Amino acid sequence: MTIDLKENERIDDLERNGYKIIQNSQKFCFGMDAVLLSGFAKVKKGEKVLDLGTGTGIIPILLEAKSQGEHFTGLELMEESADMARRSVLLNNLQEKVDIVTGDIKDASKIFGASSFDVVTSNPPYMTKGHGLTNPKDAKAIARHEIYCDLEDVVREAAKLLKPGGKFFMVHRPFRLAEIITLMVQYKVEPKRMKLVYPYIDKEPNMVLIEGARGGKSRMTVEKPLIVYKKPGVYTDEIYDIYGY
Amino acid sequence: MTIDLKENERIDDLERNGYKIIQNSQKFCFGMDAVLLSGFAKVKKGEKVLDLGTGTGIIPILLEAKSQGEHFTGLELMEESADMARRSVLLNNLQEKVDIVTGDIKDASKIFGASSFDVVTSNPPYMTKGHGLTNPKDAKAIARHEIYCDLEDVVREAAKLLKPGGKFFMVHRPFRLAEIITLMVQYKVEPKRMKLVYPYIDKEPNMVLIEGARGGKSRMTVEKPLIVYKKPGVYTDEIYDIYGY
Repeated sequence: MTIDLKENERIDDLERNGYKIIQNSQKFCFGMDAVLLSGFAKVKKGEKVLDLGTGTGIIPILLEAKSQGEHFTGLELMEESADMARRSVLLNNLQEKVDIVTGDIKDASKIFGASSFDVVTSNPPYMTKGHGLTNPKDAKAIARHEIYCDLEDVVREAAKLLKPGGKFFMVHRPFRLAEIITLMVQYKVEPKRMKLVYPYIDKEPNMVLIEGARGGKSRMTVEKPLIVYKKPGVYTDEIYDIYGY
Repeated sequence: MTIDLKENERIDDLERNGYKIIQNSQKFCFGMDAVLLSGFAKVKKGEKVLDLGTGTGIIPILLEAKSQGEHFTGLELMEESADMARRSVLLNNLQEKVDIVTGDIKDASKIFGASSFDVVTSNPPYMTKGHGLTNPKDAKAIARHEIYCDLEDVVREAAKLLKPGGKFFMVHRPFRLAEIITLMVQYKVEPKRMKLVYPYIDKEPNMVLIEGARGGKSRMTVEKPLIVYKKPGVYTDEIYDIYGY
């Protein structure tokens, strides 16, 4: 199959099942956060998965490679990103397993219906609307700043979309942890598991991975720390494992 | 000055300012959690400090040694522990700086009045009431289980007792982090700083240190991990620093 590439687009190897992904370096390329989320999320055999704000489709494509989930949907607001994600799905011959839907996270439970997924994942914008924002129409800005949706939209829609007992997996920034936990408790996606990602063992964490269960009881496991670098430029073994090298 | 010791009591050296503490090994001896809390808490010159559930008085005595706070109060329900703490205060000649008050955490804001402290600390019982409880009259059980007060009592009273902008410092178990953060947000003691304590670098954390600010904005710093052991029996340098060796 021939997939057309548009200006500034390139094809990157995902090092998983031979899968590849189309990215546009002028727009937004996936980061380590998406890869770590795909390693943190647990998808069981036969489960249906939705990724909120899927961008290039990196999370559903990686989860399809790593799990035995039955079906994966990525919801993306920006048609340009959704189109790129759809071409990556075709490129990997995943059209029976992965759907990319253009739409707004705020409408997600209307689009897909309540209690319709076993797993919801999200790598949402981390920064609040005004914080350091330069160009609100830029795809990078939309991926990073809460311009079209905020944390509460993501958690509220995830809560509606999940079946009872269904799991929510999100990557975010530690500075927003109080909001994250408060919103998850408020919308009854009880925080059950958390992992902090520290760039080095003697530095503050710069990412938090969190799992919630719809309707779960209040008791959480904080996992051992995930340290990214042994020394500058050298990943720890755990990072190599997650990347699949 | 001669201080009477009762049956099974002993005097331990705190390795700070020459201070000592009376403990009863049959009842409850302070643990690393209290020492780490005294290292995590920040008390500025001239501040008034209250410790909720002070036990042997370890936290006010250590904070008096480590800070330039003006006055330290320890509130303790069990008269036997309070009496032991008072004798430790005398033993260290701290009667002008440290008061031990016998009373219930649930009544703390009535005892001391609202908005009366710059800093409130607590090393409260970690376990819920029923969880693995064997003897609810035992001092160890009361220190470990929420028999006479629960997490909500501690956070609610801390919120009332603090002046606006005043700081709350608590050590607790990570499995209760969702409750801790939810209650702090609910009672407007906004979580501002958190540190997870990992026994080893490749193990789950077994303590969480958290700082809240009464009326603060939602934005928190998660600090670099505190690792306790380099290898079995050998503390990391950071632990030696906190203990003051």
